[in-house]
Amino acid sequence: MQLDTIAAISTPMGEGAIAIVRLSGDQAIEIAGSLFQGVGGKKLTDVASHTIHYGHILDPKTKEVAEEVMVSVMKGPKTFTKEDVIEINCHGGLVSVNRVLQLVLNAGARLAEPGEFTKRAFLNGRIDLSQAEAVMDLIRAKTDRAMNVALGQMDGRLSRLIQKLRQEILETLAHVEVNIDYPEYDDVEEMTHQLLIEKANYVKKEIENLLQTSQQGKILREGLSTVIVGRPNVGKSSLLNSLVQENKAIVTDIPGTTRDVIEEYVNVRGVPLRLLDTAGIRETEDIVERIGVERSRQVLKEADLILLVLNYADELTAEDVNIFKAVEGMDVIVIVNKTDLPQKIDLGRVKTLAREHKLVTTSLLEDVGVNELEEAIASLFFAGSIEAGDMTYVSNSRHIALLNQAHQSIEEAISGVEAGVPIDIVQIDLTRTWEILGEIIGDSVHESLIDQLFSQFCLGK
Amino acid sequence: MQLDTIAAISTPMGEGAIAIVRLSGDQAIEIAGSLFQGVGGKKLTDVASHTIHYGHILDPKTKEVAEEVMVSVMKGPKTFTKEDVIEINCHGGLVSVNRVLQLVLNAGARLAEPGEFTKRAFLNGRIDLSQAEAVMDLIRAKTDRAMNVALGQMDGRLSRLIQKLRQEILETLAHVEVNIDYPEYDDVEEMTHQLLIEKANYVKKEIENLLQTSQQGKILREGLSTVIVGRPNVGKSSLLNSLVQENKAIVTDIPGTTRDVIEEYVNVRGVPLRLLDTAGIRETEDIVERIGVERSRQVLKEADLILLVLNYADELTAEDVNIFKAVEGMDVIVIVNKTDLPQKIDLGRVKTLAREHKLVTTSLLEDVGVNELEEAIASLFFAGSIEAGDMTYVSNSRHIALLNQAHQSIEEAISGVEAGVPIDIVQIDLTRTWEILGEIIGDSVHESLIDQLFSQFCLGK
Repeated sequence: MQLDTIAAISTPMGEGAIAIVRLSGDQAIEIAGSLFQGVGGKKLTDVASHTIHYGHILDPKTKEVAEEVMVSVMKGPKTFTKEDVIEINCHGGLVSVNRVLQLVLNAGARLAEPGEFTKRAFLNGRIDLSQAEAVMDLIRAKTDRAMNVALGQMDGRLSRLIQKLRQEILETLAHVEVNIDYPEYDDVEEMTHQLLIEKANYVKKEIENLLQTSQQGKILREGLSTVIVGRPNVGKSSLLNSLVQENKAIVTDIPGTTRDVIEEYVNVRGVPLRLLDTAGIRETEDIVERIGVERSRQVLKEADLILLVLNYADELTAEDVNIFKAVEGMDVIVIVNKTDLPQKIDLGRVKTLAREHKLVTTSLLEDVGVNELEEAIASLFFAGSIEAGDMTYVSNSRHIALLNQAHQSIEEAISGVEAGVPIDIVQIDLTRTWEILGEIIGDSVHESLIDQLFSQFCLGK
Repeated sequence: MQLDTIAAISTPMGEGAIAIVRLSGDQAIEIAGSLFQGVGGKKLTDVASHTIHYGHILDPKTKEVAEEVMVSVMKGPKTFTKEDVIEINCHGGLVSVNRVLQLVLNAGARLAEPGEFTKRAFLNGRIDLSQAEAVMDLIRAKTDRAMNVALGQMDGRLSRLIQKLRQEILETLAHVEVNIDYPEYDDVEEMTHQLLIEKANYVKKEIENLLQTSQQGKILREGLSTVIVGRPNVGKSSLLNSLVQENKAIVTDIPGTTRDVIEEYVNVRGVPLRLLDTAGIRETEDIVERIGVERSRQVLKEADLILLVLNYADELTAEDVNIFKAVEGMDVIVIVNKTDLPQKIDLGRVKTLAREHKLVTTSLLEDVGVNELEEAIASLFFAGSIEAGDMTYVSNSRHIALLNQAHQSIEEAISGVEAGVPIDIVQIDLTRTWEILGEIIGDSVHESLIDQLFSQFCLGK
């Protein structure tokens, strides 16, 4: 595939020690070489692959030094994109890196679109689509566990599983085809049916296994939308502060977005909590009061986890009971706070209201019960054995949707066989399953989808 | 000099395509090598200098893959610090880069202090202090011109000039010493006096030349503190918006600082304007009203440039006249705005009030006169010939202060000679001048000052 040469700033924007302008394409070495003045007249076009060269970038118009740089030369195909790649390592700082980028663009490179380097790695066949998506997941990972899931996926763990399933389907289809073509034996039809049922059930089971990891995978990837609710003055701010302080707050600092819209993440034992309406709670202590009852119900609906806070030193009120009603059917942890004060709450009644929900008593003031709370959060979503290490997680909504479609399609194939529909109809369902699974790894996807997927990447990747 | 091995994240914090963990020191290659698993069992300790290696960082405890990386190996002394340097190029993202840093620190590196890499380049004698300071100026440069000043200084342009002056002083001192030791000739005293006056005046003149660049240099480095004043509804917000929109707004995005305190820079023909109280103007359109008369006078005092806006379509008021009084003696550009409306202002009287200040008429609504305004700003501070290309600018407050001290000290030497004070007293003043100049390039500075200077650097540089 012949593609033009692209360039972009590949480090985050901001002041830092080092910034990188990356180029990829046939002309990458030539373009960088036309701007580079090495020690002793060294030419980038003459150097060995995977070597680093000190020198200056000159403005070709003025012949003046534009920046002092280290240039890394990496010749394809053993590179990120499988193309020739140049990394110009300049002093951090916005003027510096923009100046170098500008000169590179003037010299013939095209400004890369977001994700275009990774897209090339995909188009040039170094990685498949699910691996490319994992690259972005890795960059955006909020916790160690999420990063491990992304690393595994990047390494092709999901791809290999999907390919194995597709291979099974393909072999089954081939087998069926042979049986249809040579129907000389009496028991061919029965044998074909049995084979189909067996294989289809195997594929179905594997898809189900994958889908079972999807809730956890999605939480790892996107964080657990968490809302703290409770009457005024029960300690919602204290809970928030306690979670933020005890745990590493993950502040995502994305240039171009304003601070207002940045959500706050905290990492609770590997579970990334995305605290919704955090600012609101901090300011007025009362989400309902601040955003109105209607909208607060909406926020509640979007939440994956509700932390319902009650006051140990006060009697239950009708408002408390209403809050219990509002969160019915959701994942709730009930927190009875202020155990440092004399008890007034009827714990028996709280237990009745809490039903199957986990109940934790805390004194956030005295830092009592916070460990139990974190334990409860972690065990609610990662009950039992979850170390991302060995498992293949599905974390991406696109993959989950496709797996659900594949699951439906293979179920149709199975019920078709069972209902005795003609084999060639069943074949259509199987082929469809095969195609849907292919979309996960990018084997059969539309170009527009690919463009859309990569456009969500950050610039320079 | 034997120093321990340091490590830090050298790219800006945030989500990006690439992040770098940098190590420097004797153990750098060994430490990185202990974590690195290359293709085919390649060892970092065996590879050639200035080469790049693909592989994985493993967690030594679990033997699991922690990240997919490219490792650059650069062996001293041909490196930034003159020590062995390793750059671990990982996928951007906070979890990824922090994980790699943590493993490197666990493996025996120490977390670098801010500026410590550059400090090592200084301590190991690769660059002098003024060059090290230029590294930071380059990163923080707000405009092309400012970057060129920093590049020149980093290249040793200021250092060479300072060294030349120190050499002159040293030779003069040696000459005087010889004359004192061999006073056999009758005219020795007179000859010594003449030589001293001549050389000291040369040094003085050179220092004055440097100091003359300091106002421009400082503006280029730090930006021009600019305040927009005027009655309500004369078009202050429009002016601000016009300046921001017409020119590239330079948003400094430093993690750890809140948006509130970040000033807004705009680049007007190479002059970086630092717009003070920008937020205030945007919100209430009236700085005086918002921050009170006392504080607004304070803000005015701190400004390098006042943009005084009047309303073309309204008569001059007592308030306008008061504003003229408040900015007396400052650098002011008077802007008569709203020429799209019928004239009511008495332009003759405005000219009288404006005195020597530049006067520009604009219709910001119709985008008329903005070019003239920008021209006025640029010519006010860069009258005549300023292309940073050929000149040595002094931009750093520390350097300016030292040059002023050196100037005073050399003047004392000159007036001493003229007043006929004993030569050994004059020698003291000359030696002092030599020492003060030495502080600029770090030849004679206290360790505590060095620590303090480098602590202002960003992490990882």
